[in-house]
Amino acid sequence: MKHTVYLDNAATSYPKPREVIKALNKCVRDYCGNPGRSSHYFSVRTAEELYRVREDVSSFFKSGVPENVIFTENATYSLNTAIKTMVPAGCEVLISDVEHNSVVRPLERLRREHGVTYKCFSTDGDISENIEKLIEKQTRCIISTLQSNVTGDAIPLGVLSAVKRRYGLILIIDASQAAGHRRIDLSKACYDAFCAPGHKGLLGIQGSGILILSDGNICRESFVEGGSGSESYSKSMPAYLPDRYEAGTLPAPSIVSLGTGIRYINGRGIAEIENHLSALTEAAKERLTEIRGVTVYTKSAGGILAFNVRDFPSSDVSGQLDRKGICTRGGLHCSPSAHEKLGTVERGCVRASFSCMNTMYDVDKLVKEIRLISEYSI
Amino acid sequence: MKHTVYLDNAATSYPKPREVIKALNKCVRDYCGNPGRSSHYFSVRTAEELYRVREDVSSFFKSGVPENVIFTENATYSLNTAIKTMVPAGCEVLISDVEHNSVVRPLERLRREHGVTYKCFSTDGDISENIEKLIEKQTRCIISTLQSNVTGDAIPLGVLSAVKRRYGLILIIDASQAAGHRRIDLSKACYDAFCAPGHKGLLGIQGSGILILSDGNICRESFVEGGSGSESYSKSMPAYLPDRYEAGTLPAPSIVSLGTGIRYINGRGIAEIENHLSALTEAAKERLTEIRGVTVYTKSAGGILAFNVRDFPSSDVSGQLDRKGICTRGGLHCSPSAHEKLGTVERGCVRASFSCMNTMYDVDKLVKEIRLISEYSI
Repeated sequence: MKHTVYLDNAATSYPKPREVIKALNKCVRDYCGNPGRSSHYFSVRTAEELYRVREDVSSFFKSGVPENVIFTENATYSLNTAIKTMVPAGCEVLISDVEHNSVVRPLERLRREHGVTYKCFSTDGDISENIEKLIEKQTRCIISTLQSNVTGDAIPLGVLSAVKRRYGLILIIDASQAAGHRRIDLSKACYDAFCAPGHKGLLGIQGSGILILSDGNICRESFVEGGSGSESYSKSMPAYLPDRYEAGTLPAPSIVSLGTGIRYINGRGIAEIENHLSALTEAAKERLTEIRGVTVYTKSAGGILAFNVRDFPSSDVSGQLDRKGICTRGGLHCSPSAHEKLGTVERGCVRASFSCMNTMYDVDKLVKEIRLISEYSI
Repeated sequence: MKHTVYLDNAATSYPKPREVIKALNKCVRDYCGNPGRSSHYFSVRTAEELYRVREDVSSFFKSGVPENVIFTENATYSLNTAIKTMVPAGCEVLISDVEHNSVVRPLERLRREHGVTYKCFSTDGDISENIEKLIEKQTRCIISTLQSNVTGDAIPLGVLSAVKRRYGLILIIDASQAAGHRRIDLSKACYDAFCAPGHKGLLGIQGSGILILSDGNICRESFVEGGSGSESYSKSMPAYLPDRYEAGTLPAPSIVSLGTGIRYINGRGIAEIENHLSALTEAAKERLTEIRGVTVYTKSAGGILAFNVRDFPSSDVSGQLDRKGICTRGGLHCSPSAHEKLGTVERGCVRASFSCMNTMYDVDKLVKEIRLISEYSI
């Protein structure tokens, strides 16, 4: 059976642009040595390619010097690094009510071991006001996604940024769903850490994440220690970026693919991609909403659509779609609090998530199958 | 210029077998979804491939159930996970006198924050005796490489294993240089954690590491927390392996390449590869030793050769070799204590490191160039 309609891009984007696969191949076949470790051709060439990706990333997000771009394994490692090196012991943290387990679980760890407490602000209505009314004396930090990974609904960076500035809080941003899908201009934002995966909207293969720090001069504790290829004689990680947070051999092929993904996005234009995703989501939302028995939870049109059909378990609907060659994800999507908010903790929901590689044809196929499921049951 | 002689395999092996590149390509092009996150074809197929690699790894090292094989970004992350979740606060740790910064730096962190102390045992003479005479009441742990990444000289797993068993200590093994190059039979060993990278002797691309735990039933604290695709409703990582230590999206393409590397090794036979590496190192060692002005530091023939030429800085020799198309690594190799032992802290040494893809031709080229350098200077 052909699986032609892939709508699980919020988990991992597929397919990758041809350019990404080509660059990955070239890297692995032609030059992939250990970056920053030796002075020979393979090592130097690899280091140069990675530096170019740092430049691509910092220029794509307008984040300033490339050295503040740190490469990790995935957004979860970026978030763990930021949360565990920035959140002060004993403080209170405010998080959105739709956070992923990659934020909640590290915080829960800090709660148990370092007396950190956390509260959720509502993402309904005036988010700024919702956050402000929770701020207390011990509040030091806001951690928030820019877009729910369940519904795709957005939390504006501008709002988070303004509250951070006004109250002098630490702001850690999870851009797992937004990066590569929406225009993000960090030069206009006030933030401390910005985390994103390489394998979703940025179209790289799995195995790379980015962590952008706004303040290259503040040297916090390292998160993982090991060989850095620099200051080998020191028993600590180097004090400067990116070396302080990059221990061991970097995943060069994944990073190269991520850089090529960004170049592909730049070629099409992030505004075009944002509009494209918006058009796909809007069309799917409108047409699904019209189907009797379908409940759509998503309010916006940001590339993700959360819904259920009649009273069917989401995994059954997702399973039936798969049998028809349409890939979606049922269940809780590692974000139980988002499901509490939707009242879908018991059966989860079906998530259809788009990338810039999807077309209206995919929307047609999805709508057609959901219509059949709703009419004839599974 | 053609760079045909790659002798920096102790950093990253190059080239990769054709099979590895082919499998990587197939993965990225044909099926790479998010493993363990959804129930559709791409996700399930990827999860199946990764489980197959867990089986390959556990069978290659004879480590028992595949679930005890944990995938990380690299050996440094494996070591950080093991060291930071297993070493008790306030205890004393014994490490070899040739440890890499991926062991020393995390330990130094534990020293500063958790009162852990550490002492080095000599790897000269009777290693067992050297360790035993350092054991004191507060000693709880041994952390050791199986092979120095500077000289390639071995520390037998059997010796470490016997001491661990005799004194009831925790044993964390760094097999960064040994994995894929030497026969390792964990079914005969007594150990707690076994760490190795995917991109060196195991011939995968960069971006994967393995951590094998011997005791799947003992549930220690997690190291990184995030989405696990399982028990989403829990605020902690699942209590079982491998989920407890695998947070966020796994680097599937790198893991698939590592699995293919292991299958390539199995095809040739690890004994054949061990002999091949030994023959190359022995030949290079003998012939370099005969050259006037060359000091060879390596005592054994395990795939790595450390040497210097006259009083030249190692980076100059390595640089000149690179100009002739021979890739080696000068400097300290992230292992200052190994260089203290050799008396080469000031100028480092040149390291030529082989993989199973090298041939005697590469040895000839190396020897020829070193002879020229030694005779005519750089």
